[in-house]
Amino acid sequence: MELLTINNVWMMICTALVFFMHMGFSLLEIGLTRQKNTINILFKNIFIITVGLLLYCLVGFNLMYPGFGEESSGFFGFAGFGLDAVAAADLAYNEGYTYWTDFLFQGMFAATAATIVSGAVAERIKIVPFMIFVVIYVGLIYPIAGSWKWGGGFLDQLGFYDFAGSTLVHSVGGWAALVAVWLLGARIGKFDKDGKPKAIPGHNIPLATAGVLILWLGWFGFNGGSVLSAEPGATSLVLVTTCLAAAAGGVVAFLVSFAKFKNLDLTMFLNGILGGLVGITAGADVMSPTDALIIGAIAGAIIVFAVSLIDRIKLDDPVGAIAVHLVCGIWGTLAVGIFSNNPDHTFITQLIGVGAYAAICIISTFIILFTLKKTVGIRVSEREELEGLDAHEHGMNAYSDFRMNEH
Amino acid sequence: MELLTINNVWMMICTALVFFMHMGFSLLEIGLTRQKNTINILFKNIFIITVGLLLYCLVGFNLMYPGFGEESSGFFGFAGFGLDAVAAADLAYNEGYTYWTDFLFQGMFAATAATIVSGAVAERIKIVPFMIFVVIYVGLIYPIAGSWKWGGGFLDQLGFYDFAGSTLVHSVGGWAALVAVWLLGARIGKFDKDGKPKAIPGHNIPLATAGVLILWLGWFGFNGGSVLSAEPGATSLVLVTTCLAAAAGGVVAFLVSFAKFKNLDLTMFLNGILGGLVGITAGADVMSPTDALIIGAIAGAIIVFAVSLIDRIKLDDPVGAIAVHLVCGIWGTLAVGIFSNNPDHTFITQLIGVGAYAAICIISTFIILFTLKKTVGIRVSEREELEGLDAHEHGMNAYSDFRMNEH
Amino acid sequence: MELLTINNVWMMICTALVFFMHMGFSLLEIGLTRQKNTINILFKNIFIITVGLLLYCLVGFNLMYPGFGEESSGFFGFAGFGLDAVAAADLAYNEGYTYWTDFLFQGMFAATAATIVSGAVAERIKIVPFMIFVVIYVGLIYPIAGSWKWGGGFLDQLGFYDFAGSTLVHSVGGWAALVAVWLLGARIGKFDKDGKPKAIPGHNIPLATAGVLILWLGWFGFNGGSVLSAEPGATSLVLVTTCLAAAAGGVVAFLVSFAKFKNLDLTMFLNGILGGLVGITAGADVMSPTDALIIGAIAGAIIVFAVSLIDRIKLDDPVGAIAVHLVCGIWGTLAVGIFSNNPDHTFITQLIGVGAYAAICIISTFIILFTLKKTVGIRVSEREELEGLDAHEHGMNAYSDFRMNEH
Repeated sequence: MELLTINNVWMMICTALVFFMHMGFSLLEIGLTRQKNTINILFKNIFIITVGLLLYCLVGFNLMYPGFGEESSGFFGFAGFGLDAVAAADLAYNEGYTYWTDFLFQGMFAATAATIVSGAVAERIKIVPFMIFVVIYVGLIYPIAGSWKWGGGFLDQLGFYDFAGSTLVHSVGGWAALVAVWLLGARIGKFDKDGKPKAIPGHNIPLATAGVLILWLGWFGFNGGSVLSAEPGATSLVLVTTCLAAAAGGVVAFLVSFAKFKNLDLTMFLNGILGGLVGITAGADVMSPTDALIIGAIAGAIIVFAVSLIDRIKLDDPVGAIAVHLVCGIWGTLAVGIFSNNPDHTFITQLIGVGAYAAICIISTFIILFTLKKTVGIRVSEREELEGLDAHEHGMNAYSDFRMNEH
Repeated sequence: MELLTINNVWMMICTALVFFMHMGFSLLEIGLTRQKNTINILFKNIFIITVGLLLYCLVGFNLMYPGFGEESSGFFGFAGFGLDAVAAADLAYNEGYTYWTDFLFQGMFAATAATIVSGAVAERIKIVPFMIFVVIYVGLIYPIAGSWKWGGGFLDQLGFYDFAGSTLVHSVGGWAALVAVWLLGARIGKFDKDGKPKAIPGHNIPLATAGVLILWLGWFGFNGGSVLSAEPGATSLVLVTTCLAAAAGGVVAFLVSFAKFKNLDLTMFLNGILGGLVGITAGADVMSPTDALIIGAIAGAIIVFAVSLIDRIKLDDPVGAIAVHLVCGIWGTLAVGIFSNNPDHTFITQLIGVGAYAAICIISTFIILFTLKKTVGIRVSEREELEGLDAHEHGMNAYSDFRMNEH
Repeated sequence: MELLTINNVWMMICTALVFFMHMGFSLLEIGLTRQKNTINILFKNIFIITVGLLLYCLVGFNLMYPGFGEESSGFFGFAGFGLDAVAAADLAYNEGYTYWTDFLFQGMFAATAATIVSGAVAERIKIVPFMIFVVIYVGLIYPIAGSWKWGGGFLDQLGFYDFAGSTLVHSVGGWAALVAVWLLGARIGKFDKDGKPKAIPGHNIPLATAGVLILWLGWFGFNGGSVLSAEPGATSLVLVTTCLAAAAGGVVAFLVSFAKFKNLDLTMFLNGILGGLVGITAGADVMSPTDALIIGAIAGAIIVFAVSLIDRIKLDDPVGAIAVHLVCGIWGTLAVGIFSNNPDHTFITQLIGVGAYAAICIISTFIILFTLKKTVGIRVSEREELEGLDAHEHGMNAYSDFRMNEH
C-alpha cells in the first residue's frame, strides 16, 4: 500500500506535468507565428486538450489498451465505451498507479500528437476541418496506433521499443504534420517567385522561449512518468538522460547553426533542445548519460539540417514541427537499436516500427484531410489569410488596445 | 512514518500548485483587461498573496480551525494569535500532513477568495480602499466563514458538504465580487446611452489563456490536496473528475456560445473550463467520472447564460468572475446534493450552506465597502479611469519602450 | 526502499522546480530591461542552463563533491571527469536520493549563479566574452567554491552554515555581478551629466511579475529540496519559513518604498519578495516562523536602501541583482549567526564564510573579465548598444510584426 501510494503520487505529478506541456506547446506555437493568427492557434490548442481528454475517456483509452487476447493479431482491439468503475475500485490494478491515474496520464499524452500538427498547419488551415481532423486523429488513429506497442499489440510482440513515445507520440504527430503541410501548401509569402524560402518571423519570441522551457519541464513528467512507477533508480536515470539530451541538443544546434549561418540563432537553440528531448524519448530508460549526450547532440545537428531541407523542398512548417517531432522522433527510435544494450531492441525491429507508424499515420491523415479538402476545403481564403484568422474566424484580436510608450 | 512522509510530500506539492494559481489569476485578470491598468492589477494580486499569507499566519489559521468545543454553537472561535510550535513538533498531528503543511496549504487557499474579487473590480477601484477590504476579508471573513464547515462548525454538523471550496472559496469570493461590482458601478464606456453593454476587449489574450491553463494545473493541487492525504484511490479519482469537468465545461461553453453567437469565442471556451473546475470542486471526491462530465457540461452552459445575464442587469465584471466563481460555485455546491450517493449530502443542507455563505459574505462586504465608499471613496476619478490606474497610482507603464516592427 | 523511493520522488520534484527557476530568471530579466535586448538575454539564459548542465556533468559535480580526504586542506579536490555509473548503480548511495538525482539537483543549482550575473550585465555586455565567462565560472569557480562548504571542505569544518545557498549560490552570483557591473560601466543614458541616475523602465512588467512568481514557486524546490530528503517535519518547516520570509520581504519593501517615495512601486514589491527569499535561504531549516518573518522583513527593507545605494555609487544593475542576491545573500548568511539556536553557527564563522566567498568570487571574476576586457573586449559598441543587441548579435527581433489595435 505504501509503495502504491508513492508510485501513484509520482505518476499523478507526472500527469500534471504532461498536462502543462499543452501550455508549452501553445506558447511556442503562437510565439513563432504572426500576431494576426494568435487567437486561432490558442483556440486550437484549447480545443485539443479538452476534446482530446473527452475522446480518450469515451473511446481512446479502451482502443489503446484493449487487452489483446491470445488469438488476436494485435492490430486492433476495443474494450468498450467509457471508463471502468470496477477496474478502478481495485487497488491491485497495478502496483505503479491506480486505474484513474493510468487513464489520466495516458489521456494527457493523447492530445499531444494533435498539438504537434496544430503548429505545422498554423496560419492557413480552416478551423472547422481542423477540428474534425483532431477528433478522428486523437479519438481513433492515435490510440489504435498506440495499441500496437503500448497496448501489447503486434509491434510489442516483435520486440519494437519506444519507451515514452519518440514514435508513438512525436512521430505520430509529425507524420500527420508532414501530410497536412503538403496538402495545405505554403503560406502566402513564404516562398518568393523563384521558390526561395523567406523567413516569416514569429511575433513573440519571449513566449516561444517560455514555451520551450515549459516543454522541457513537462518532459520530466513525460519521460519520468513513462517508468510507470517511482522506482528510484529508473526514474532518476530517466531524468538525467532527458536533461542531458536536451542540453546537448540545444548546444549542438546552436553551434552548427552558428558555423553554417554565422548567427547566434535563438530559435535554432530552442529547436535543438526540443530535438534532443524528442530524440531521447524512445530510449531514455535504456541509455547511459553518455549515450544520451550523443543522441541529443546528433538530434541537435539533425535539426539544423532538417529545417533547411524542409524549406528547400518547399514545405512550409511555421514552427519546425516536422524537423523536431518527426525527424528527431525517427532518429530517437532508431537510436534505441544502435545504443541499447538490450539484444531485443535491434535496429531492424526499430525500423519496422518506424515504417508501421509511417504507414498508418500517412494513410489515415491523407484520407481524412484529402476528403475534407475535396468537400469543405481545408484552407482559408486568400483574404482571410492576409488579414489574419483571428479577425475572420474569431472576431477577436490577441492584443487589443495595445499602446506603446516610445522611449 | 513512511505513510506520513508520502502524504506530506503530496500535500506540499499541492500547496505549491495552489500557490501557482495566484500566477494564473494574475495573468487571467490582466489579459482580460486593458493595458493601462495592468500594473495596478498585478500590484493587487501580489499584495493579496503576500498579505494574505501573513494574515493567515497571524489570525486566519486559528480563526478557521479554532477547535470548536462541545458547547460551542460553531459560529465563531479563535485559537489565539500566530502559529503553534508545540503542535508543529508533534508528527502525530495528522497522518496526512504536518502542522506546517496544514498551515501553508490552507494559507494558499485563503488568498484565493480575495483574488477573485480583484478581477471583478478591476480598472476602476481605488487601490488603498481595496487593500483595506482585502485585509479584513482575507484576515477575518474568509476564515470565520470557513470555520463553519472546514473548521467543524455548525454547517459541518448540519451535514453540509463542500469538498474543496465551490462555496467556501469560490462563492465567498464571488459574493464579495457581486456586492463590490454593484457598489462600484460600471466602467466608463461599458454601457452605452441606452444601457446596452459594449465589449471592452482584453489587451493580452495569450496571457489570459496561459492564466487559465495555469489555473487548471493549480486545480490538480486545489482539489487533489483537499483529499488531505495521498490516498491513491481518492486522489486519482479527484484528478479525473476535476479534469473531465474542466474539459466538458470548456467544450459545452464553446458549443453553446457558438450556437448563440455564431462565433468561435476563445474567452467563452476559457471561462467554460474555469466554470467546470469551480463546479466540480464541491464534490470532486464523491462523483463518478460521468457525474463529473454532466456537472462540468452544465457549468459550461451556465457560464454562457450567466455572462449575458450579468451584462443585461448592468453589472460590469471585466473578467467574468461572478459567472465563474459565484454562479458555478453555487451550481457545484447544489450538485453535491443531486449527484452524491452519500445520504447526508441532501439538496436542502446544500442550499442552507449556500444561503449561510451568501448572508455572511454579502453583509460583511456591504458593510466594509459601503463604509469605505462613504469615507475615503472606493472609485478612482474619471480622469484617472480614462488615463489608466497605472500612471496615476503607480507612476509606471506595463510595457514601456515597446517598439514594433511592422511587417 | 519505500523511504528511499519517497525521498527520491520529493528530490526529483524539487529538481524540476529548480529547473523551472531558469524560466523565472529569464522572464524577470527580460521584463525589467528594454525590448531591443530581449533576444540577447533569452539567448544568454538558454545558454547558461544548457551549458551549465553539460559542464556540471563533465567536471562540476566532481569538483563540488570531491570527497575530501582526511589529510586534505579542504580547498580543492577533484574526483575525475564525468559521472560514475558504479556509484549510480548502488541504491545505498544515500537514503535521501539516488546518485542520478543528486547530480541533477545540484546541476540545476550550478547554473543559477551565472544567471544572476546575466541580469546585472544586461543590455551592454558582448555575448561571446560573456559565454566564456559563464563556462569558467559555472564550470570551475562555482563548484570549487561550493566544495568548501557543501563538499565538506574547510568552511564546513569551521562550522560555517549555509542551508540552501544564500552565500554558495546567491552571493556567488552576486559578487560576480558586482565586479562585472563595475568593469563594464553603466548603460548609455543611465546617469545624466551630473551623475544623477535615471530610471530606464523595463519593457514588459507582466513577464517580470510572472518571473518572480515562478521564482517563488521554484524556491519550494530550492529550499525544500535542500533538506536532501522528504523528512516531513523539516521539509514542511522549510516551506513555511521560505514563504513567510518572501511575503514579509515583499510587504516591507512596498511599505518602505511607499514611505520613501510615496509611490506604490510594483518592482520594489517584487524585489522585496526575492530579497526575502534570498535572505531566508541560508537558514530556512533552523529558523522559527517568527525568525523567518523578521529576516524577510529586514531583507525587504534592505532592498529599498540597497537599490538606492547602488544607484548612488553609479553602479548600473538593470534588474537589481546585486541588491537582491548579494546584499540579501550576505544578510541571510549573517542572520544564521544571529537567529540560529545551534551554537556551532556563530556570527564569526558566518562572517568568515562571507569573506571567503567574497575573496574567491571577486578575485576570479576580476581575473576572467579583466583579461577578456583587455583582449577581446567585453562591451558592445555604442551604436550596437543604442540600436539593441538583438539586431546586432542575433539578427532577430523579440516581437516582430506587432500590430496594435488602438481603442
